[in-house]
Amino acid sequence: MGIMRIGRAELKVLDLEKSVEYYTNVIGLDEVGRYDGKVYLKAWDEWDHHSLILQEAQSSGLDHFAFKVENAEDLEKLEKKIELFGCTTKRISNGTRLGEGEAIRCELPTGHIVELYHEIEKVGTKVGVVNPHPWPDGLRGIAPHRLDHLALTGDDIETVTRFFTEVMDMFISEKITTIDGEEMVGSFMYARNGKAHDIAFIKGPDKKLHHAAFYVDNWYDVLKAADILTRNDITIDVTPTRHGITRGETTYFFDPSGNRNEAFTSGYITYADFPTITWTEDKIGQGIFYHRRELSESFVKALT
Amino acid sequence: MGIMRIGRAELKVLDLEKSVEYYTNVIGLDEVGRYDGKVYLKAWDEWDHHSLILQEAQSSGLDHFAFKVENAEDLEKLEKKIELFGCTTKRISNGTRLGEGEAIRCELPTGHIVELYHEIEKVGTKVGVVNPHPWPDGLRGIAPHRLDHLALTGDDIETVTRFFTEVMDMFISEKITTIDGEEMVGSFMYARNGKAHDIAFIKGPDKKLHHAAFYVDNWYDVLKAADILTRNDITIDVTPTRHGITRGETTYFFDPSGNRNEAFTSGYITYADFPTITWTEDKIGQGIFYHRRELSESFVKALT
Amino acid sequence: MGIMRIGRAELKVLDLEKSVEYYTNVIGLDEVGRYDGKVYLKAWDEWDHHSLILQEAQSSGLDHFAFKVENAEDLEKLEKKIELFGCTTKRISNGTRLGEGEAIRCELPTGHIVELYHEIEKVGTKVGVVNPHPWPDGLRGIAPHRLDHLALTGDDIETVTRFFTEVMDMFISEKITTIDGEEMVGSFMYARNGKAHDIAFIKGPDKKLHHAAFYVDNWYDVLKAADILTRNDITIDVTPTRHGITRGETTYFFDPSGNRNEAFTSGYITYADFPTITWTEDKIGQGIFYHRRELSESFVKALT
Amino acid sequence: MGIMRIGRAELKVLDLEKSVEYYTNVIGLDEVGRYDGKVYLKAWDEWDHHSLILQEAQSSGLDHFAFKVENAEDLEKLEKKIELFGCTTKRISNGTRLGEGEAIRCELPTGHIVELYHEIEKVGTKVGVVNPHPWPDGLRGIAPHRLDHLALTGDDIETVTRFFTEVMDMFISEKITTIDGEEMVGSFMYARNGKAHDIAFIKGPDKKLHHAAFYVDNWYDVLKAADILTRNDITIDVTPTRHGITRGETTYFFDPSGNRNEAFTSGYITYADFPTITWTEDKIGQGIFYHRRELSESFVKALT
Repeated sequence: MGIMRIGRAELKVLDLEKSVEYYTNVIGLDEVGRYDGKVYLKAWDEWDHHSLILQEAQSSGLDHFAFKVENAEDLEKLEKKIELFGCTTKRISNGTRLGEGEAIRCELPTGHIVELYHEIEKVGTKVGVVNPHPWPDGLRGIAPHRLDHLALTGDDIETVTRFFTEVMDMFISEKITTIDGEEMVGSFMYARNGKAHDIAFIKGPDKKLHHAAFYVDNWYDVLKAADILTRNDITIDVTPTRHGITRGETTYFFDPSGNRNEAFTSGYITYADFPTITWTEDKIGQGIFYHRRELSESFVKALT
Repeated sequence: MGIMRIGRAELKVLDLEKSVEYYTNVIGLDEVGRYDGKVYLKAWDEWDHHSLILQEAQSSGLDHFAFKVENAEDLEKLEKKIELFGCTTKRISNGTRLGEGEAIRCELPTGHIVELYHEIEKVGTKVGVVNPHPWPDGLRGIAPHRLDHLALTGDDIETVTRFFTEVMDMFISEKITTIDGEEMVGSFMYARNGKAHDIAFIKGPDKKLHHAAFYVDNWYDVLKAADILTRNDITIDVTPTRHGITRGETTYFFDPSGNRNEAFTSGYITYADFPTITWTEDKIGQGIFYHRRELSESFVKALT
Repeated sequence: MGIMRIGRAELKVLDLEKSVEYYTNVIGLDEVGRYDGKVYLKAWDEWDHHSLILQEAQSSGLDHFAFKVENAEDLEKLEKKIELFGCTTKRISNGTRLGEGEAIRCELPTGHIVELYHEIEKVGTKVGVVNPHPWPDGLRGIAPHRLDHLALTGDDIETVTRFFTEVMDMFISEKITTIDGEEMVGSFMYARNGKAHDIAFIKGPDKKLHHAAFYVDNWYDVLKAADILTRNDITIDVTPTRHGITRGETTYFFDPSGNRNEAFTSGYITYADFPTITWTEDKIGQGIFYHRRELSESFVKALT
Repeated sequence: MGIMRIGRAELKVLDLEKSVEYYTNVIGLDEVGRYDGKVYLKAWDEWDHHSLILQEAQSSGLDHFAFKVENAEDLEKLEKKIELFGCTTKRISNGTRLGEGEAIRCELPTGHIVELYHEIEKVGTKVGVVNPHPWPDGLRGIAPHRLDHLALTGDDIETVTRFFTEVMDMFISEKITTIDGEEMVGSFMYARNGKAHDIAFIKGPDKKLHHAAFYVDNWYDVLKAADILTRNDITIDVTPTRHGITRGETTYFFDPSGNRNEAFTSGYITYADFPTITWTEDKIGQGIFYHRRELSESFVKALT
């Protein structure tokens, strides 16, 4: 049945231990293993082995991200569709990543690397599957439920959006267009999972990461997240507010390498018959930051 | 691709105008039309023409409920699967319901009537699809986003659950079993839409409605809902609390005919690889009412 | 200027260590010292040395409670007014309690023991007085801001209320009367401090404690409190709801000795010119539990 | 017993009807009367006749503000203390303002005009004093509970602070000082009412208004306030965030004449023995905006 969700992101960080410290104590993820110099992390409410991998590198940014597919056969089917679309694919062999099976890898029209995988070890959430409590004891930091979505920049938004809708069978919840409606300059896409977005693309330089978002429970937890960030001297890029796009509640901040993170919550539920909402570029400020109604320079320019 | 969501419920009410008054001013739905003596209603955040139909009758309860399928062809495919499962189907002709096309109708193993439909007029939400505000002016009452799910009772939970998973291709988010695990006495099922449940079945008499749930935004809106109910002298069955099952936040109450309603929010997100959570019957109190930890007589016995 | 607030309560508990475990890990108070077989505790946001004292005893209940007065001279003035009212006073010498100076002690018309004190060591809150963070790291359990109020029962509500208004110069925020308005059966009183109540009396047996309330931040923290109680198998008496009286949001539960506790938040602000709100006895259910609209047997009968 | 609270503010506005439209429909106050070309308004949860007066003028800003005192005799006592402090007082005769009795008027060391009054007609809140609901039907806009506090600028913070503590018997909850602690550049003061502040002064030009704040219920209502502001195209100065000073949750925005308003909630409770919290000027950014941690130019410069 195809893609279920964004399953993981591998981020490049400048100082591995400092980053692990941040992602475990400030964000509140759990370290689940190390392999090949990389650190694997998961949120407390995720079932799979990991959703975030940290890789030490000379520059920050996104190494790649990956979608989990529902069935093993989806890999082969999607591999063919990707090739038909004109992108080259590559098989990543079983065991390349800790706890994972084989993956399909390709480069997007925007230069980002995406993978598809099906097999991954199930670690389970911290509350278990028998008579579970709603949340576990001993949460640390922001303690999000899960990796929620990524936002990336690229030059050709139309083509990369076509890739996700035609090849990946994903849906566009919202898009940003020029005022005349001629050009798409932003798109927010989801797999058949009810989310407002698994992946978003905004007009900008290719290969860049705008942000990686983690899901928190509610607007009070967005406040708590921002409080925790200040206490830990983490730079906040955007203080708590609401998005016009997705209606979600949010705060943005930077990891120690300058990769932007988001604590995101709420938003609506999507279905395959959900119409695409359109934002015209003159209202992009309100679309992104519903209260400030204009973009900030840092939000536009700080990319990794 | 099959079932997208529970799309509508038709409730039997004892006094039509009194019920319309309640569903529009207390719940805060909008009346969208009347046809054949029935009143059609929708929530402000739903795209389709209606999600609730009120029918005046001698006794209260559920006339039938219906799932919306993603494609027109799904109807025929599901029709065959239903017949194969051993249930008789019937075509409901185009125009039988206001704003809807053809539907497939069948009787569940629990005696409830379910329909499948694809065509329905798109009315749109109150905020529109171009540069929308997150919520509209002029909301009334509890003002839920949407019809969220139904809970029904029936004698043979195993079989009706098999019907939904095998025929409807739905998933079980949680189930309740006897302590020895031998018998399933409750199941909570969702289509591929990220919800914690579209439909739930609890061991009890066949053909009965336990409740119809509407989705509100957050725990403060559950409080607001309960406040509104008291101000309007509506009987509350269960004051604000959390469910163990689904983790959702909730309050239950009765419409003027005694049909139980719920204002529900939160809960987790589900995917096809989400493991089924099991509640053993000895913990059913905690599963249903996480704080009270025991069922109330009215919650168990008041069925329509 | 007289009474500032309820400053402390001394509770009788059946098993001291089990109670300390509960009040430190579930409620989340800090143990600040032990003296004369008693354990002294404070909430993280209180400035004074302690607000709760636990005393091991054969039966549970309230040993006594105490108000802090603004100036040392207030003690003598109030001592005279108490005597004039007809109650006998007694001086409690400096050093009788850990961290406290001299106190005035008397018996209320309801048989409860109340003290007045001015001197108490200032320990400070966990966030300090220079460039403080809004909340400290490392909070445990429900982690209330402070002891908020007590509710007691007594036979002669009129007289004890007169004691607090005439002698203690306190104000009545709300009262409950018989339907004909002839008899007062409940009163909620506050010092000149903006609170909805420091002390409440409800018609019932003399000398009994109905509950001791701790202040939490908001309605989500009431939910969190109830979640924590269930996780710790603490009996909840009243699940999250709103009071009509005070408008506050609340959940009630029992300490290991059966003393009722409350996690309370919100409510309005009071001033000396705030009119007393009246609840007639026929609406007492709605006044106490705004959503349920009737008292439960346990809430009425379980007194210590 | 002296000052109870800030009771009213009279704002100068450039276009009276446009301002009335804003304060009634966006803020959600009720117009209670017009007299002498001025419009009188109150919040739904205030008992007194009015808390805000709008006066059409050539320039925006604060005409004056006023404290309500507990007893009629307080007026004379405070009149003498004011004169002793060296400020000239003037009697404002009964009937000068709609619904009010006599007042005492004086000019503060910062050039602002302040009045004291005791008599004012009691209109009552919208929920009444007998078996009241927690909130009324038919609220409009932000619908705050009350006028909460004012913040003003002035050159000599030390002297104006001394005026309020020595003459008005008010307390300093927090202050901002130069890093060496030598000079006070901000002070936040409250009457004996539990509030975090009734009035604040920040170093700046004399006679200017920084903002007038209205109290809303909780952090979700701050979000709702900001949503309403955007829907109504009101300029937001500061999007939802937390203050370090007072811990309160907040959003700032401008009325149609450029007078800054605030929707404020939470914060702690104060008592006469509450120690003054000190913020050093190097942390003023964090003190004012706990998340952004730096002042914005508009927040510092836009004064009326």
